[in-house]
Amino acid sequence: MILDGKAVAKQNEQTLKIKVKHLLDLYGRVPCLKVILVGDSPASMAYVTSKKKACHRVGMNAEVIQLPVETTEQTLIDLIQEMNDEKEIDGILIQLPLPKHMNENKVLNTVSPNKDVDGLHTLNAGKLFTKQDGIIPATPLGIIMLLKAYNIDLFGKHAVIMGRSNLVGLPIGKLLLDLNATVTYVHRETVDPKKYTKDADLLVVAIGKANHVDQSFVKKGVCVIDVGINRVDGSLVGDVNFEEVSQVASYITPVPGGVGPMTISALLHNVIKQFEVKYDR
Amino acid sequence: MILDGKAVAKQNEQTLKIKVKHLLDLYGRVPCLKVILVGDSPASMAYVTSKKKACHRVGMNAEVIQLPVETTEQTLIDLIQEMNDEKEIDGILIQLPLPKHMNENKVLNTVSPNKDVDGLHTLNAGKLFTKQDGIIPATPLGIIMLLKAYNIDLFGKHAVIMGRSNLVGLPIGKLLLDLNATVTYVHRETVDPKKYTKDADLLVVAIGKANHVDQSFVKKGVCVIDVGINRVDGSLVGDVNFEEVSQVASYITPVPGGVGPMTISALLHNVIKQFEVKYDR
Repeated sequence: MILDGKAVAKQNEQTLKIKVKHLLDLYGRVPCLKVILVGDSPASMAYVTSKKKACHRVGMNAEVIQLPVETTEQTLIDLIQEMNDEKEIDGILIQLPLPKHMNENKVLNTVSPNKDVDGLHTLNAGKLFTKQDGIIPATPLGIIMLLKAYNIDLFGKHAVIMGRSNLVGLPIGKLLLDLNATVTYVHRETVDPKKYTKDADLLVVAIGKANHVDQSFVKKGVCVIDVGINRVDGSLVGDVNFEEVSQVASYITPVPGGVGPMTISALLHNVIKQFEVKYDR
Repeated sequence: MILDGKAVAKQNEQTLKIKVKHLLDLYGRVPCLKVILVGDSPASMAYVTSKKKACHRVGMNAEVIQLPVETTEQTLIDLIQEMNDEKEIDGILIQLPLPKHMNENKVLNTVSPNKDVDGLHTLNAGKLFTKQDGIIPATPLGIIMLLKAYNIDLFGKHAVIMGRSNLVGLPIGKLLLDLNATVTYVHRETVDPKKYTKDADLLVVAIGKANHVDQSFVKKGVCVIDVGINRVDGSLVGDVNFEEVSQVASYITPVPGGVGPMTISALLHNVIKQFEVKYDR
């Protein structure tokens, strides 16, 4: 069975549209997201455009600010600080990766934790790992939303995460642990990764290697979440060999149309959450 | 082979003693820890006394402030804020557990992240989980120090953590992942925990159940870290049945004399780190 992220995201947007209208009635304005893109990588430009469009579809404000690749770190930090002070801005998203001459952690921590919509401020990361309510990174949050939409119960199941990045692997493992899954992190230094992945009830793959995970990695009936987005011969493919693995999996996300749209859906959720928290304070 | 935490901690103290003397020469004062204990639980009183004594052994200042169990949260918060402002205090430790009428997260986050020596401020938790330099909780840090003292290499090994608390299980797993171990979290909702623990090269047990882990949980040659401290018939025992498991383990920590002294050693390390960072700022 295909985990249709595109369809679930579309459905979510109907709910969010109503919510935004409700917020407009309540507070006289709609949530506003600013996306900062440094440089002109085509992939990044495509991502920020789709984020902006999604905001517009649900009735929120969104603007992309594109800075030249040679922008200094200080200029970027000054801009972020101005935006932190600007009352009508609810979310600030720094599109990653940043150019090499910038300190990513320093820039991300300049964004006010109250306007961070990517969950990448250290304080929000700390909240996630100490089970306090905060902003959860969009991709892991989107995955949880997708699993919930299909009523997939993780209680007592073995979840194996391939990848241990701050953005995806590490936080999705923590969220699955909170849902009472038994969680194993597998990574590039793991000896015999298949020993673990073959036992997985849920396999989350976030390794950035096109079509890497084939049938030999999984057991029959596994649920597979493919976070990879790789460009091969002009088309998008995931980290999982969909054709092979979909034959034995009980559930699987396609690429595109799986985790991608859910990530955007989770981002919209985070912007609205920051807006609501602001008015609750 | 016994992982002799008591001996390693004693050795560490010799080094720290020299370091403290050096800091006194450099800055004209020694690091100072304040320990706040609310209530009079005998176990907590024993812990804070041993922490204070350890500070004194290496030449640092340390004081225990004991408050009555009925102290209000606000009184405690006011006291912590005063201590945050006091220049001659380098570390503030809130002995856990706090009385039920207090919000633990709120109290712990009142301690300045620059005086937090337990790594329990949300910002320090966030730093640990995003691989930034910060303060690491004393028990997991002590475990890593012990493993390093015995040159136990975790690279590519399977580390299984029993327990997923913010204080021990979760952070020790993250530290082992950073050392390139493959990490599995097992907990009370895990179906068939032995399936995982029997495969472990390193087994960390932090579940608070006296003598729970027997030979049937482990494979021959396993390295076992027992974090448990349970009082049974007036004596201290760990979560691991030491007599049984020590017969098949390659390394094992005793209780007492294993993780306990290393936790205190790591605390001293954290106080000195906060002191040094202050003068580096």
